[in-house]
Amino acid sequence: MKQWLEEKLLQLNVTEYMDEEYGFTRLSYTEEEKQAHEAFKKAAEELSLDVVQDEAGNVWARWKAAQEDAPTIAIGSHLDTVSGGGGYDGAAGVLTGLAAVKQLKDKGFQPTKNIDVVCFASEESARFGVSTIGSKATAGMMDKGELGSVEDADGVTVKEAVESYGLSWESIDQAEKSPDEIERFLELHIEQGTQIEDNGAEIGIVRGVACPVRLQVTVKGMANHTGTTPMNNRSDAFVAAAPIITYVEEQARKRNGVQPTPIVATTSTVKLSPNVMNVIPGEVQLGIDIRSVDDELKRNLAEEIRSYCKTIEASKDVKVDLHTLVDNDSVHLDSSIQEQLQEITEKIGYRVHPMDSGAGHDVMNMATRWPSGLIFIPCRDGISHHPKEYASIEDLNKGTNVLAAYIESIASDHQ
Amino acid sequence: MKQWLEEKLLQLNVTEYMDEEYGFTRLSYTEEEKQAHEAFKKAAEELSLDVVQDEAGNVWARWKAAQEDAPTIAIGSHLDTVSGGGGYDGAAGVLTGLAAVKQLKDKGFQPTKNIDVVCFASEESARFGVSTIGSKATAGMMDKGELGSVEDADGVTVKEAVESYGLSWESIDQAEKSPDEIERFLELHIEQGTQIEDNGAEIGIVRGVACPVRLQVTVKGMANHTGTTPMNNRSDAFVAAAPIITYVEEQARKRNGVQPTPIVATTSTVKLSPNVMNVIPGEVQLGIDIRSVDDELKRNLAEEIRSYCKTIEASKDVKVDLHTLVDNDSVHLDSSIQEQLQEITEKIGYRVHPMDSGAGHDVMNMATRWPSGLIFIPCRDGISHHPKEYASIEDLNKGTNVLAAYIESIASDHQ
Repeated sequence: MKQWLEEKLLQLNVTEYMDEEYGFTRLSYTEEEKQAHEAFKKAAEELSLDVVQDEAGNVWARWKAAQEDAPTIAIGSHLDTVSGGGGYDGAAGVLTGLAAVKQLKDKGFQPTKNIDVVCFASEESARFGVSTIGSKATAGMMDKGELGSVEDADGVTVKEAVESYGLSWESIDQAEKSPDEIERFLELHIEQGTQIEDNGAEIGIVRGVACPVRLQVTVKGMANHTGTTPMNNRSDAFVAAAPIITYVEEQARKRNGVQPTPIVATTSTVKLSPNVMNVIPGEVQLGIDIRSVDDELKRNLAEEIRSYCKTIEASKDVKVDLHTLVDNDSVHLDSSIQEQLQEITEKIGYRVHPMDSGAGHDVMNMATRWPSGLIFIPCRDGISHHPKEYASIEDLNKGTNVLAAYIESIASDHQ
Repeated sequence: MKQWLEEKLLQLNVTEYMDEEYGFTRLSYTEEEKQAHEAFKKAAEELSLDVVQDEAGNVWARWKAAQEDAPTIAIGSHLDTVSGGGGYDGAAGVLTGLAAVKQLKDKGFQPTKNIDVVCFASEESARFGVSTIGSKATAGMMDKGELGSVEDADGVTVKEAVESYGLSWESIDQAEKSPDEIERFLELHIEQGTQIEDNGAEIGIVRGVACPVRLQVTVKGMANHTGTTPMNNRSDAFVAAAPIITYVEEQARKRNGVQPTPIVATTSTVKLSPNVMNVIPGEVQLGIDIRSVDDELKRNLAEEIRSYCKTIEASKDVKVDLHTLVDNDSVHLDSSIQEQLQEITEKIGYRVHPMDSGAGHDVMNMATRWPSGLIFIPCRDGISHHPKEYASIEDLNKGTNVLAAYIESIASDHQ
């Protein structure tokens, strides 16, 4: 199985070597994503699965149950990446889904339910700033009107990208599946953190997915000549904004000390205007990303940041506006699936760490319509969205064993 | 004269109204700069001046002395602007140069020296990051090898821009003038600050031009997922860089309290990588601009910033590199010209403020080869490089009077 995992990992990444210096770039609805999907189709067909691409570009590979009207268990993730990302984020879930099927087929297992391995389209927000487009379509969560006109950095809209991918924008929302078409959904993903190892475990079983609160802070001062404007006569937006960056980090750090649920907050983007050497910054825009499974905790921090911005406005000669870009409730995954997964994983002999996910995944959307579970495997140093992203074949194999055992437990006659 | 100033100000700005919402954009060696130069030629020809464009695109308009081999006094500035700049930075000097000639002609004055009004090409660094290209060519300071391949934001090189402007790159350095071709040079410019008014004066006579020390600080941390990387396991380059912004401002401010020569320092640019919402900043590049006529003072502050960066590196889990981009000696202008200008200005009845210039001007280059002077007139609230930049016709008229009186004093038979 390990050799098969190694081979298919390369195939799904359309590469001969996993340690590509610049990583992998397979942005949403591009030729590169399509090539990875073609590799997935090929690998699925080698396992004699029935492959169909739906209206959103998601590819479904079915291992049919003997019985015609059997329920369906779906397992999957995605194959698109960020720009210069790794070959495991998404790929690990698709690969281990196929591998679990292979393992069960190899041992002569006959499922009493259809097993669908799905490769969702366009999970990463790197191209359009919008994530999980494929699984949103499946779960009936797509806002077509708003989405169609969203542009990438080159001004190409989602609609245009979808159509040049060979799909019809007109019918993209027909990818939606009704509640009775799927019984439950499972995703396996690399952790993108180090909690599993830090807690001496091998597999993470996820309780909830922390959806972000995202803030946009705009500080308006006055642009002026750097050489001719005395220090005591300035309204420098960047100087006013700098303590906000420090505050966000300090406050998030402090809160982790005093209560049990983790919270993270990051000033991750900046736009300076005019951003030229001889002009005092007249305007700064900061993007702040706050995450915790505890929605009250993250909203409380957002409020504290808002108050702090008011303090800055009152003490410096600037105007500060705070705008909430995103504020979604966190997703709590099905507790009985968590229990089953934990039991099965421990039965195999792997140490389990129950945890939350700080990153969003396709399972967030699937969980709004179907009971769902999320399994994490470790990745080296927690690095992801980076060429150095890495998960061992050993860990991919462990993930495969968990998925296979879980399928066996719920899709067999002895159930 | 005031009506003439108003009309010509509009003509030189190729506009019908000075209060354009988005200001004026006449970048280096563009069609827009050329149109302004054409307007200058037209205005100069209306005054019966002999107009020639040199190999660098500078336009020289000569009021010939009666005597064939008379020396030449040059007066001028530029007509290019930053992006969304004002209609006075540069234009004020070109306009008042022409106006001084008109005033003297109107009263029947016959100069004993040639009076050249010059409109230099490409003074602003907004397009190429390189300033005063035209006057560098005149003063023989152009480094053609290095300059030619400098690119604008669209990848157009200076060489390509110069050639599409209709000039020959091959011969651009032939614009150089030998020391004996000019006797002295005068520039009038808006102050781009408020020291003239703050000191209850009407005209500023400049002693020196503060050339900047420019630093590039690169902070390298580790990019990672904002949602999955705990607060205690981060190497956030932006968090590490934020105190540097505060430090630069505080230190510059502090120094102005304890010694007489002004100093200014600004963190004016930032480049964040990857600058996306769900990734912790892995690298930050800050651009810092430090200016003072006291070269030791500015270099001392640069050293303090370097030390502070070492402190940051030692206390946070990041690497900090500091690179000096620019470090030029400040330019001290001819003291006898300063004295003459001050005497003449006070004789007219205007209150004079002797001061330094925090901004660079064409006169910096001219002063390396010819005795030179720089006259400032006030501009409203010190605002420049901005659509709100404004200087009154009243003040432009005062500047004209100073220039005319100065020319009269040094280019007449009674001298």
